[in-house]
Amino acid sequence: MGSVFGNKVKISVFGESHGTGIGVVIDGLPSGERIDMEELYAQMSRRAPGGDKTATPRKEPDKPQILSGMIDDVTTGAPLAAVIYNTNTRSQDYGNVMSSPRPGHSDYAAHIRYSGYNDIRGGGHFSGRLTANIVFAGAVARQILKRRGIEIAGHIYSIGNVSDAPFDPVGIPQELIDRLNHEKFTLVDETKEQLMRDEVEKVRIKGDSIGGVVECIIQGMPAGIGEPMFFGVENVISSVVFGVPAVKGIEFGSGFMGSRMTGSMNNDEFYYDGDTVKTVTNNHGGILGGITSGMPIVFRAAIKPTPSISIQQNTVDLQSGEDTVLTVHGRHDPCIVPRAVPVIESAAALAVINML
Amino acid sequence: MGSVFGNKVKISVFGESHGTGIGVVIDGLPSGERIDMEELYAQMSRRAPGGDKTATPRKEPDKPQILSGMIDDVTTGAPLAAVIYNTNTRSQDYGNVMSSPRPGHSDYAAHIRYSGYNDIRGGGHFSGRLTANIVFAGAVARQILKRRGIEIAGHIYSIGNVSDAPFDPVGIPQELIDRLNHEKFTLVDETKEQLMRDEVEKVRIKGDSIGGVVECIIQGMPAGIGEPMFFGVENVISSVVFGVPAVKGIEFGSGFMGSRMTGSMNNDEFYYDGDTVKTVTNNHGGILGGITSGMPIVFRAAIKPTPSISIQQNTVDLQSGEDTVLTVHGRHDPCIVPRAVPVIESAAALAVINML
Amino acid sequence: MGSVFGNKVKISVFGESHGTGIGVVIDGLPSGERIDMEELYAQMSRRAPGGDKTATPRKEPDKPQILSGMIDDVTTGAPLAAVIYNTNTRSQDYGNVMSSPRPGHSDYAAHIRYSGYNDIRGGGHFSGRLTANIVFAGAVARQILKRRGIEIAGHIYSIGNVSDAPFDPVGIPQELIDRLNHEKFTLVDETKEQLMRDEVEKVRIKGDSIGGVVECIIQGMPAGIGEPMFFGVENVISSVVFGVPAVKGIEFGSGFMGSRMTGSMNNDEFYYDGDTVKTVTNNHGGILGGITSGMPIVFRAAIKPTPSISIQQNTVDLQSGEDTVLTVHGRHDPCIVPRAVPVIESAAALAVINML
Amino acid sequence: MGSVFGNKVKISVFGESHGTGIGVVIDGLPSGERIDMEELYAQMSRRAPGGDKTATPRKEPDKPQILSGMIDDVTTGAPLAAVIYNTNTRSQDYGNVMSSPRPGHSDYAAHIRYSGYNDIRGGGHFSGRLTANIVFAGAVARQILKRRGIEIAGHIYSIGNVSDAPFDPVGIPQELIDRLNHEKFTLVDETKEQLMRDEVEKVRIKGDSIGGVVECIIQGMPAGIGEPMFFGVENVISSVVFGVPAVKGIEFGSGFMGSRMTGSMNNDEFYYDGDTVKTVTNNHGGILGGITSGMPIVFRAAIKPTPSISIQQNTVDLQSGEDTVLTVHGRHDPCIVPRAVPVIESAAALAVINML
Repeated sequence: MGSVFGNKVKISVFGESHGTGIGVVIDGLPSGERIDMEELYAQMSRRAPGGDKTATPRKEPDKPQILSGMIDDVTTGAPLAAVIYNTNTRSQDYGNVMSSPRPGHSDYAAHIRYSGYNDIRGGGHFSGRLTANIVFAGAVARQILKRRGIEIAGHIYSIGNVSDAPFDPVGIPQELIDRLNHEKFTLVDETKEQLMRDEVEKVRIKGDSIGGVVECIIQGMPAGIGEPMFFGVENVISSVVFGVPAVKGIEFGSGFMGSRMTGSMNNDEFYYDGDTVKTVTNNHGGILGGITSGMPIVFRAAIKPTPSISIQQNTVDLQSGEDTVLTVHGRHDPCIVPRAVPVIESAAALAVINML
Repeated sequence: MGSVFGNKVKISVFGESHGTGIGVVIDGLPSGERIDMEELYAQMSRRAPGGDKTATPRKEPDKPQILSGMIDDVTTGAPLAAVIYNTNTRSQDYGNVMSSPRPGHSDYAAHIRYSGYNDIRGGGHFSGRLTANIVFAGAVARQILKRRGIEIAGHIYSIGNVSDAPFDPVGIPQELIDRLNHEKFTLVDETKEQLMRDEVEKVRIKGDSIGGVVECIIQGMPAGIGEPMFFGVENVISSVVFGVPAVKGIEFGSGFMGSRMTGSMNNDEFYYDGDTVKTVTNNHGGILGGITSGMPIVFRAAIKPTPSISIQQNTVDLQSGEDTVLTVHGRHDPCIVPRAVPVIESAAALAVINML
Repeated sequence: MGSVFGNKVKISVFGESHGTGIGVVIDGLPSGERIDMEELYAQMSRRAPGGDKTATPRKEPDKPQILSGMIDDVTTGAPLAAVIYNTNTRSQDYGNVMSSPRPGHSDYAAHIRYSGYNDIRGGGHFSGRLTANIVFAGAVARQILKRRGIEIAGHIYSIGNVSDAPFDPVGIPQELIDRLNHEKFTLVDETKEQLMRDEVEKVRIKGDSIGGVVECIIQGMPAGIGEPMFFGVENVISSVVFGVPAVKGIEFGSGFMGSRMTGSMNNDEFYYDGDTVKTVTNNHGGILGGITSGMPIVFRAAIKPTPSISIQQNTVDLQSGEDTVLTVHGRHDPCIVPRAVPVIESAAALAVINML
Repeated sequence: MGSVFGNKVKISVFGESHGTGIGVVIDGLPSGERIDMEELYAQMSRRAPGGDKTATPRKEPDKPQILSGMIDDVTTGAPLAAVIYNTNTRSQDYGNVMSSPRPGHSDYAAHIRYSGYNDIRGGGHFSGRLTANIVFAGAVARQILKRRGIEIAGHIYSIGNVSDAPFDPVGIPQELIDRLNHEKFTLVDETKEQLMRDEVEKVRIKGDSIGGVVECIIQGMPAGIGEPMFFGVENVISSVVFGVPAVKGIEFGSGFMGSRMTGSMNNDEFYYDGDTVKTVTNNHGGILGGITSGMPIVFRAAIKPTPSISIQQNTVDLQSGEDTVLTVHGRHDPCIVPRAVPVIESAAALAVINML
């Protein structure tokens, strides 16, 4: 029951990496919302493997088929269901037997959880490929939110020890949002790109991988959204963002850095900007007591280095019950952080559309 | 609807700081569980304001009254309801009018959310006092979990820039758990206490406050618990932990530090310890793909400096619509991190009991 | 986890018949709603045992204490919690041992469900006394709904084989609603009262009991409320109404009678009443495809005869493992249908407030 | 959000009658369950339009495609997703404009609910065709339940005024279950078939339709399943069964008839059958206090006459705002009760698998 999320808008994600297809059902969308499919595909393209720097609508092999919920690109109010067929499907008779779980992957935990019946090829239901569903659903949600004045942007906050310029937490310009929303290697300070690519290349040639942090801003949220305690904005966003594989941490506003600060440094003073109450700084990340303050929501998600490395590692042989070594072959993405940006943005969108 | 959490075991928290009483209803507990009430009060005492270093069962003015769900300290299976009456209750005719929201508090956000009808005295429903309910419910859950081999311990990971020794993520000794579970200023390395107290005193004399980090370990979790995606262990724990006021970040295992690491550093290699599969290191914090690996669950929560400071701050006057200044009077706790430890442990317990 | 209901407005009910107290937490109410407490007590009085024909606000021993969520009878938006202390509480040392389950009661099923740890005195958590919580919560909801133009009325549709005049399903006059809402023996056709009382008396003198049907109408519901399939209006109402002990059936509109009809008889033709679309008849009970049509919602709930009878019955002795006989002593209510009317109305109100 | 049901096992249904496809995602199934696909298709065949008396696996145009969650017909534990492509799909440019809502259909209510954007062809998301998804999901659930000793059977209790022999509520023989589970015109007393067919023919020739009642029995349920109050067995079953279009009533055990009975008639006396506690009669329908007693669960669902009739009816013209008349053309099923039997059985299975 873990692959269903939401209250007002329910998202049901399905699929295994090498099964027949993956997809998503979005139940509870408002009716009458026109979805710009080119824009939607552009978002999916930002997550798609391969490709160049800029995400342009292009021939997309992973183009989702809409099964229901839309007529002529306008939502009907019925569940919006989409499927992406896998081209790299399993044969019916391969041996689906886990022997040596890959360190850092879900292999072992899933093997126990599903008594060895889970689809293991390519990670099965735990594959990063499943995030295509989240981007699909998120892209739909973002178009609906944008029509209500709410926009979301993310960027590569850091890869390894190389950092981008952070978002200005009291707000970023519309032009920056528009640019970031259409890039694949999403940076505020584009001069950092080569440094980051160098950082990645350094580990790639060793067969290793590297992690990073994605920062996300949600602008245009009205004040007064959210619930106290367990359905606060932080709770809801984190419960979706941790649904993105490889996320191991999340912080809002000043977050962990704020825990080292004094109250007088961390408190954000209020002032009137015309009739609007704002704060001078935004260490609270737009959320006070679980409820929006009207300032932008700002959060960062820690992405662990992808566990797929080609360096030999120690592991166990679950069949023989003995220790063994493992070398994972194949071409791996040494850094998934750039592709994680639209996924985190999408997770944020799905959280927000559930709170309005 | 934000003050209800859970699926198998539902927790419904109520109360306002200066109302008649606060309390909690816990629905879905197993029947036949004997609750050691002295142990429960000892946990509540760790969170209670005032008191000395060690949490001993003592005359507790905040002693909860059990309304239902227990006979002779044994759970009946019916909802367990408890109330703690407030002694500092509001008069019926005071003016409940928000004028100057305190920076860093929920005041402004709640004022908008509830159109000015929320109880503002002492923070109302957003008061830290409400966490007594979480500790009560968590203490019940922890006794039930302990009977199933699962124990939870937390400590003050840091206050400001002073850090305790971290938990050994592959496991801590039972004696350490037992000691930590009965201290109010909970440290692995007790020699750090004076340094931390000095750090707090430094801000206190300025009328300021300081934040910190709480680290928590959950030992004895069987492998294979949790669901993929949105109901993974990280999702569920974070959705409760962010229900604790002042928490602004959470990370599991190597967390944000892991995002700077390479895959070969961050991956945890498997080995057989007898018949049991373990990992040499525990950067994954006991969770892979949202599912437990059988290693201890380790997480850290960032606690912001309490916004209650006596230094003058800028804010707005919501009645006049103009900027103003505010000086908050009264005696404030300059650092809530020590008292937050049992609250975070309890939140973890409530998450875990919902996943078994 | 069964005693919590709702999505937007969550109701958490607690208590055992002879425990310390019973109560309810209502989470998610709108703020700023003034609650007329006299009117609320009048509704509770309609359900209370004893009393005369008309429900007047009177000295009520079961008067709930409000613990949180209101200031000066106005909702704050925080969870509204109320407790009713039991005067007839259990001693701490009585033997809580189920030996002979009473036929028709929850005794045996609960004994198995809770492994014998459930509170058995007076039915424990299964006692009809717990419905006082539902009436409390329902009375709050009804005042909020009324302010939005929605009113609910019920009546004794039948007791045994004696029937009241049914509601006119296309709508009943406001004066009738007002009258019914303040009676304890609630009838459209008051001339039926003596016949019904005779029917009850006939079984009472034999130590027996009798069942009946409660009919309920919800007027003022706008069209277009509800969701298809599993959260349709029928689904939501029935999921609350079956939470009332002794309810064994529910039907909407023409219900079971409609199943014997032809489509041409059962279909309700549309027409314009000014600008408003109405139906000439209301066999659909105000619900089409799970969604409101704008016509009144009409449903009937079957109430089984209370199983508490003083006639000797066969049962088992769970301690000895042998068949035995049982005579239940004490004064029993031979017909709970009149007191069930405000409970069913309240359940309907709690369903409706969750769908708006 | 109405098309998602469940807690442990979540069912997400999608599709519109004339869209690209319909389907279902079942999240939370146990892993390692082999599904007999021929048996599954046989159940779907019982619901499928057309066909003869006996449901045999045959060339099924509506054969679902499994997208995920199974390898070689064994569940993997990941969400099981299936799609059935529609052959009768909408053109992209037809006018999706509701003018004259059909009496008794969801047309008008859905038009208001979705502001006119809902797919109206063939009823869209409200079409009875969507029940194929429920039968698919239910057939999977039933095979899993059967392996745990739980079997479900239904029959046509009545069509119009012609009744089948009722189920013996204390239990029916295995051979009867096996026979009923593989018939399309499902009757206990097969001699009633011609009478029922005559009843249907009588209305068909007039262009009219007729309703009926489906009775369902669930055998092998252990005692002690269910929760008090809002998640009792009655609540959960009814919340799914009302998700089946045309259901307007449900009753458990003696139900509405029991409301006319005395307690001494309606109470079911307990006795020991060896070591097992049973009841002599089963007026409680296997449920006491919301919890199973170990006796069979018995319920009946009232099915309204299908509103699709070819007789001219009065309705409104939503475009012109005036009254009008409507004659619905096309071939209609004059009685959907036989085809509703496997749907109701499936709904029961989905409820039960969520309570175990």
